[in-house]
Amino acid sequence: MGKYQPKDSFQSPRFCGPRTFMRLPYIEKLDEHMDFIITGAPFDSGQSFRTGARFGPEAIRDFSILLRPYNPEQDINIFDYISGVDYGDIPVVPGYITETYQKIEASLAPVVEQGIIPIVLGGDHSITLGELRAIAKKYGPVALLQFDAHSDTWDSYFEQKYNHGTVFRRAIEEGLLDVSRSLQIGMRGSLYGIEDLQDARKLGLEVYTTNQYKQAGVKKMLEVIHQRVGTGPVFLSFDIDFLDPVYAPGTGTPEVAGASIDDALEFVRGLGGIHFVGFDLVEVLPAYDHGQITAAAAANIVYEFVTLIALQKRAKLQQ
Amino acid sequence: MGKYQPKDSFQSPRFCGPRTFMRLPYIEKLDEHMDFIITGAPFDSGQSFRTGARFGPEAIRDFSILLRPYNPEQDINIFDYISGVDYGDIPVVPGYITETYQKIEASLAPVVEQGIIPIVLGGDHSITLGELRAIAKKYGPVALLQFDAHSDTWDSYFEQKYNHGTVFRRAIEEGLLDVSRSLQIGMRGSLYGIEDLQDARKLGLEVYTTNQYKQAGVKKMLEVIHQRVGTGPVFLSFDIDFLDPVYAPGTGTPEVAGASIDDALEFVRGLGGIHFVGFDLVEVLPAYDHGQITAAAAANIVYEFVTLIALQKRAKLQQ
Amino acid sequence: MGKYQPKDSFQSPRFCGPRTFMRLPYIEKLDEHMDFIITGAPFDSGQSFRTGARFGPEAIRDFSILLRPYNPEQDINIFDYISGVDYGDIPVVPGYITETYQKIEASLAPVVEQGIIPIVLGGDHSITLGELRAIAKKYGPVALLQFDAHSDTWDSYFEQKYNHGTVFRRAIEEGLLDVSRSLQIGMRGSLYGIEDLQDARKLGLEVYTTNQYKQAGVKKMLEVIHQRVGTGPVFLSFDIDFLDPVYAPGTGTPEVAGASIDDALEFVRGLGGIHFVGFDLVEVLPAYDHGQITAAAAANIVYEFVTLIALQKRAKLQQ
Amino acid sequence: MGKYQPKDSFQSPRFCGPRTFMRLPYIEKLDEHMDFIITGAPFDSGQSFRTGARFGPEAIRDFSILLRPYNPEQDINIFDYISGVDYGDIPVVPGYITETYQKIEASLAPVVEQGIIPIVLGGDHSITLGELRAIAKKYGPVALLQFDAHSDTWDSYFEQKYNHGTVFRRAIEEGLLDVSRSLQIGMRGSLYGIEDLQDARKLGLEVYTTNQYKQAGVKKMLEVIHQRVGTGPVFLSFDIDFLDPVYAPGTGTPEVAGASIDDALEFVRGLGGIHFVGFDLVEVLPAYDHGQITAAAAANIVYEFVTLIALQKRAKLQQ
Amino acid sequence: MGKYQPKDSFQSPRFCGPRTFMRLPYIEKLDEHMDFIITGAPFDSGQSFRTGARFGPEAIRDFSILLRPYNPEQDINIFDYISGVDYGDIPVVPGYITETYQKIEASLAPVVEQGIIPIVLGGDHSITLGELRAIAKKYGPVALLQFDAHSDTWDSYFEQKYNHGTVFRRAIEEGLLDVSRSLQIGMRGSLYGIEDLQDARKLGLEVYTTNQYKQAGVKKMLEVIHQRVGTGPVFLSFDIDFLDPVYAPGTGTPEVAGASIDDALEFVRGLGGIHFVGFDLVEVLPAYDHGQITAAAAANIVYEFVTLIALQKRAKLQQ
Amino acid sequence: MGKYQPKDSFQSPRFCGPRTFMRLPYIEKLDEHMDFIITGAPFDSGQSFRTGARFGPEAIRDFSILLRPYNPEQDINIFDYISGVDYGDIPVVPGYITETYQKIEASLAPVVEQGIIPIVLGGDHSITLGELRAIAKKYGPVALLQFDAHSDTWDSYFEQKYNHGTVFRRAIEEGLLDVSRSLQIGMRGSLYGIEDLQDARKLGLEVYTTNQYKQAGVKKMLEVIHQRVGTGPVFLSFDIDFLDPVYAPGTGTPEVAGASIDDALEFVRGLGGIHFVGFDLVEVLPAYDHGQITAAAAANIVYEFVTLIALQKRAKLQQ
Repeated sequence: MGKYQPKDSFQSPRFCGPRTFMRLPYIEKLDEHMDFIITGAPFDSGQSFRTGARFGPEAIRDFSILLRPYNPEQDINIFDYISGVDYGDIPVVPGYITETYQKIEASLAPVVEQGIIPIVLGGDHSITLGELRAIAKKYGPVALLQFDAHSDTWDSYFEQKYNHGTVFRRAIEEGLLDVSRSLQIGMRGSLYGIEDLQDARKLGLEVYTTNQYKQAGVKKMLEVIHQRVGTGPVFLSFDIDFLDPVYAPGTGTPEVAGASIDDALEFVRGLGGIHFVGFDLVEVLPAYDHGQITAAAAANIVYEFVTLIALQKRAKLQQ
Repeated sequence: MGKYQPKDSFQSPRFCGPRTFMRLPYIEKLDEHMDFIITGAPFDSGQSFRTGARFGPEAIRDFSILLRPYNPEQDINIFDYISGVDYGDIPVVPGYITETYQKIEASLAPVVEQGIIPIVLGGDHSITLGELRAIAKKYGPVALLQFDAHSDTWDSYFEQKYNHGTVFRRAIEEGLLDVSRSLQIGMRGSLYGIEDLQDARKLGLEVYTTNQYKQAGVKKMLEVIHQRVGTGPVFLSFDIDFLDPVYAPGTGTPEVAGASIDDALEFVRGLGGIHFVGFDLVEVLPAYDHGQITAAAAANIVYEFVTLIALQKRAKLQQ
Repeated sequence: MGKYQPKDSFQSPRFCGPRTFMRLPYIEKLDEHMDFIITGAPFDSGQSFRTGARFGPEAIRDFSILLRPYNPEQDINIFDYISGVDYGDIPVVPGYITETYQKIEASLAPVVEQGIIPIVLGGDHSITLGELRAIAKKYGPVALLQFDAHSDTWDSYFEQKYNHGTVFRRAIEEGLLDVSRSLQIGMRGSLYGIEDLQDARKLGLEVYTTNQYKQAGVKKMLEVIHQRVGTGPVFLSFDIDFLDPVYAPGTGTPEVAGASIDDALEFVRGLGGIHFVGFDLVEVLPAYDHGQITAAAAANIVYEFVTLIALQKRAKLQQ
Repeated sequence: MGKYQPKDSFQSPRFCGPRTFMRLPYIEKLDEHMDFIITGAPFDSGQSFRTGARFGPEAIRDFSILLRPYNPEQDINIFDYISGVDYGDIPVVPGYITETYQKIEASLAPVVEQGIIPIVLGGDHSITLGELRAIAKKYGPVALLQFDAHSDTWDSYFEQKYNHGTVFRRAIEEGLLDVSRSLQIGMRGSLYGIEDLQDARKLGLEVYTTNQYKQAGVKKMLEVIHQRVGTGPVFLSFDIDFLDPVYAPGTGTPEVAGASIDDALEFVRGLGGIHFVGFDLVEVLPAYDHGQITAAAAANIVYEFVTLIALQKRAKLQQ
Repeated sequence: MGKYQPKDSFQSPRFCGPRTFMRLPYIEKLDEHMDFIITGAPFDSGQSFRTGARFGPEAIRDFSILLRPYNPEQDINIFDYISGVDYGDIPVVPGYITETYQKIEASLAPVVEQGIIPIVLGGDHSITLGELRAIAKKYGPVALLQFDAHSDTWDSYFEQKYNHGTVFRRAIEEGLLDVSRSLQIGMRGSLYGIEDLQDARKLGLEVYTTNQYKQAGVKKMLEVIHQRVGTGPVFLSFDIDFLDPVYAPGTGTPEVAGASIDDALEFVRGLGGIHFVGFDLVEVLPAYDHGQITAAAAANIVYEFVTLIALQKRAKLQQ
Repeated sequence: MGKYQPKDSFQSPRFCGPRTFMRLPYIEKLDEHMDFIITGAPFDSGQSFRTGARFGPEAIRDFSILLRPYNPEQDINIFDYISGVDYGDIPVVPGYITETYQKIEASLAPVVEQGIIPIVLGGDHSITLGELRAIAKKYGPVALLQFDAHSDTWDSYFEQKYNHGTVFRRAIEEGLLDVSRSLQIGMRGSLYGIEDLQDARKLGLEVYTTNQYKQAGVKKMLEVIHQRVGTGPVFLSFDIDFLDPVYAPGTGTPEVAGASIDDALEFVRGLGGIHFVGFDLVEVLPAYDHGQITAAAAANIVYEFVTLIALQKRAKLQQ
């Protein structure tokens, strides 16, 4: 059994105490017993429509106390194999994206360096650039597996280079991504022009719209994903607006007719065997949530990320 | 035509008057003209996460005024065949589960004794034990048909024997259920351990997860149900968290990726011919509902229960 | 002790059963044991801004279950002196004001005729015309004591004679009010023109703005009221928008800087000795309420109406 | 490029300025550069259950600012082909349906006369009668394509001929519809009696319940639609309660187990080639919406209406 | 400077990280550097009306991150004098009050024993009995200073001895209170009977209604308090329903016409010099809160408790 | 009568059409008939706690449709004397404060230049710097009259010079303010240190806390204001958090125990005779509002600004 475990909810009710992810210990110092950390990047100055994603990490933590250690769909008792902590949040700089990127990179670099897998809770999608910088330092360019309603590959917005709509173009320009192994799934909604999707493809990304994935089916798409990302290091970026607004009303730029939570979970559960080096879950905006629906979806998806890490560890142990 | 009918909504608008279920008469004294009663058991001290289900009966009643007497899917004008009332609520004892069980049993025993079918609105799921005690008094052990995200068969919680997570283990121990004819459908979500589901099965229950039912399809599952419960007396217990949180945000322990309301209705509508002796609908928690979504789902499911009773009566009359 | 009493909340918790006002019996047939009735007039087609007041009676009932029979400020155990019921709602005609007036008058006339005091829950303020017609049938023109942010004495609105902004001009034109004994308190907010208040005064009404009453103080204003209404029959019409929006967010036409609930209660509690023949409480609009704040205010004000009736009865008995 | 275009959201953020539909110019005077207008009919006195749809147009406009000019599913840059404006709202008469019909007709007649296609935002469904009167003036009886949970073909309600439940019977009686080419899709929910659906059919309408369309599939149903409406002029009336309450909680008379937004969009996108002369989208009731879910659905459906007009124009140009 | 300080919000934005009270360290082990601890008692099975106060501690923590260390009204930089931590929550037993009392007592006894002052966040008011048992162990009977809308001195409720309405009678019976030095302020609202207040007085408590304190003024009342509680040890119990519902909508049993937050703060700020040995703040029920109004009030009142401890320490140091 | 007037709400109901402030014409081109303009600055990247104030202008406009042209407290029919328009919003640059300042200045400079008085709707308080730059261009340093819970005179936050907490220090450093005539009213809440208020005073500002103004009374404070600002040009900046959170829950950094709306209105109404050259109303954050309480307060305060301009004009005309 790993060193850092969630509190036992048969000893103290799950609604006891400050909210850490899954009731894991809240520790802000790294050590060798950590297979993963959960950390927030509560930045939302990159949002182009609704703001408020800075409260996303809190909302996800608050619902996550309901999560229990055994994942029946993957048949694994997570903490039999791994150990992890709630690492607190990265001290972002509200209103200042360049400075925030420096903070994110500085915070995550030692995590990545020690081989600990970071799971970052957004914050808006602009934060991913900072994460990728930290990741690439150790791994070089990594594959991107992105679930999202938007490609986020504009060149600029209001003549500015950095915000949540340009993040992946910047990452490619900075050489952080291995585009030949990268793909985006879930694009949908009205666009400024036909070039919005074309541009992402011109950058070398494989792009699947929501309708395309629905027609193909999740199973088929999973094959596509595995084939595309191959065996090298992969970063998984999950924008909660991949989900339909009924499953994720609390988000910055909702687009109707998105994925169901069933599909989202089937996707993530089907990613076993991929060599993940980092994860994020972004764009949860609690002020537009109600009854914690968005938070529930987000917390469960992050839970599946943690499970993937446990599966990876178990596979290694069983080799 | 039965004696007790809903108020005519062409005479007084449906939003007129105190809310009784479907605008039925509010009568707290039993008589021989009643085929069924609707009663609430507004108890929520058995809830292990969110509390507030004591306001569930009110919320269901409040939406139910929109329900009309002809069920087109079942092609029956309900009150041509049966008659029933809103019986008010059972005087539960907030904070005291043992005493509450006594009240529930005492309230329902005469109802059951007279051959009137009780439909109980929860309240949390712990109330079902009290109901089953009243039912078993007349019928002996009955089959359980449970729609729920959780098996509710733990041995104890915080070292206590009675709450909404242990209710069916207790019922089995007390000999109230014919486990050989009982089944549970809808289990899902993270667990404390692999034994959570195994235990339910060891107790003799047949257990189908949400994923299992979705793969099999509702039609196939209906066959399984009919075969399992057979011709003996059956109690139907419907926990609103069987539904996905988008259909039932207002509940105590929401688990993502649940059933759609379409499936739920198809299930209940497919239960004609089963010998039901009681029903409940539990875990509606209005404080987390919005736009009455949960209440709408719950009221419509209860409406289908009433329809089943009408179909049963019509079948008898047509024999 | 009166015949009709609220349910005993030490026997069944107050959140049990269909919501009737104060848990009084729900009886739709008049008898001689009734000193007062509570009835709703769920009509909102007279609203000129927000609509939805048709759900006002339900919201008031739903909160009123918290009210207990002893009023410590007035030192009276209400039901030691009087007896009353929840009479259900008047079958208004949604969208049709003339027809609705007929229904209101037809419903209330026998109540008034038998000397039972009606307390009507709105609904928008247009309903008061129907009530006054029923009242005047028995008593002739009565004094109006109106608490309200608006005078509701326009001549017409969109060229129509009947809606919630013209009701008291119509009542005066129809001879239902004894304007020489009538007064309005609470007017405030921006107006279409200076004539808005002048018109009310030209009609013979005494008009006090919110600022005027605040400068005078409630005590002083109470003297003014008693002097004005005298000893003849009085109708009290309370528009919930008399209160500041923080106390009554759920209303149709909110005006900032209104009365506090403390002042409102002091006003109503200070009306002992006046010969009331009817009451209404209008413009509660639950869809804009939250946390039942507006409903709480409304239910408590109605509770004070009931207390006034009890005081009146006690005074008679003690003579 | 058409004359009237949405504001460029790369120049000013989309959340800038008063909300007009899609950020189109707000112009209340017709001219020859308009292919379509968006106008509201904020009337809700025809609602038989919840009221408040008068704020529907505002809610739809408020969300529509997120819509962008390129529709990827239809592969068209809308404003390359057409030009349109936000025409403001029709000055309805709250509480007076007959007078409101006159206003609607008077407002729309010149629009229709000039060959501009009106897209009307409700308001409750009763408004459609006024629209059809204006349409029929120019086109004679038109086909009705109605997406709705209810047939709205009662004869009367509370003995009144005009409200949101009788509108299409009235339209047929007035000769405004070519019933032989008309159809309704989406009926569901409990009814007053078996005659509710029969009556619509007796009037000559083709009626498909939600379950029927789901069993047939959208593709199949689209064939049925095209065949039924033929090549003559068609009016499309979309009641937002066609959608399941999880997609449209903010509506007047919600019925569970409705259409998904995916299906709704597939329906509307499949209507290319039909000769539409007018559209409406009704029964959005923001006070029961949350997180703008209903508004998002409605705005996107209206967006598809606009797209259909653009496709129609492009087809003409390419002939 | 004390050892345990809030995180510096100029280093990391205040919305960073898991929510602990005021961003204090989250430490579950006592040590000699702690002058006070903040701990939750998330129990709500004692609530007689609305339930959900188990989420009170989380809600208070979540807002408390906005609190800064310098209290200008008391002119003190709190952590220059004292040091404290967020101690997590007491592992209560949902649904079981007797067992919960044991847990509370067991948790707090060592805290009190070491001379650390506990500040307990409720939970419902029933928890105070457990706290007083722990306090009395060290100090013997203490004075009670209670701000509350209700006396909570019933003998029983539904024939049960323990719940949030009987707690102070039990405490007196158990000899935990020095009634001769105890007083209650804020009683208001309708009662079951005249004896409700009389009983509290018969028990020896001094009782001031809300109206009484408002007439006397806060300054005068503060003199009364100081005189009454004297120099011995005092426990301060603050039920958030002391406040008017507009300041505290999120509570279990709201009574209209309560105290303003201004008065509440003036009261607590005026308590310097009293020998406090413990504090609690109870009945915050977030599911009925909105915009964090209740949480803001509660967090600020607790902040004043912490300030009182700092003042006490400074006074000692300055002696 | 001025050229630009609100739409007549007796002609079209006030809930008709796109929301412009008070239903004024929406015109984005200046002309000589404008005495004032209403414009939004929907920027919120300067917020240090909650974000979302970019939707403030929309929320204020949406409620403002209820405002009518005659102000009874000031006895003036506003548009008999002045004329103004809704000028739309300034195209801010989300996430980029420096660029946003340029846009604000560029937008407002021509307005100010032509002697038109700008009333700016925020947005967060950081926007005021851009406004003052435009104002000072014409008038040189102006007096600041600020109603606010916070001084906003920090030197930096997270090492950044520009955000909503540093705006007035920057303005002073840039020579935009005549500090000798400037004052701030309403400061309250916990602080980082005693220097927070001292710093504002060291900068030359006169600072009054909320408690200070409450003790002095509004009348007395008005004298102080008039004396301080004198006869030179004055800019009035009103942060909605000057109000207590019950009157303004929808704001970025709520502090309990603030001003009532009565006091706020009395303040603004008492400012006649002062030579105002610009106004703003900032920090309205609709996502945390409910029932439009905050929007109502804000719209009414802006309405009083407009009235002040009308009074100023009338005074000039009457000279």
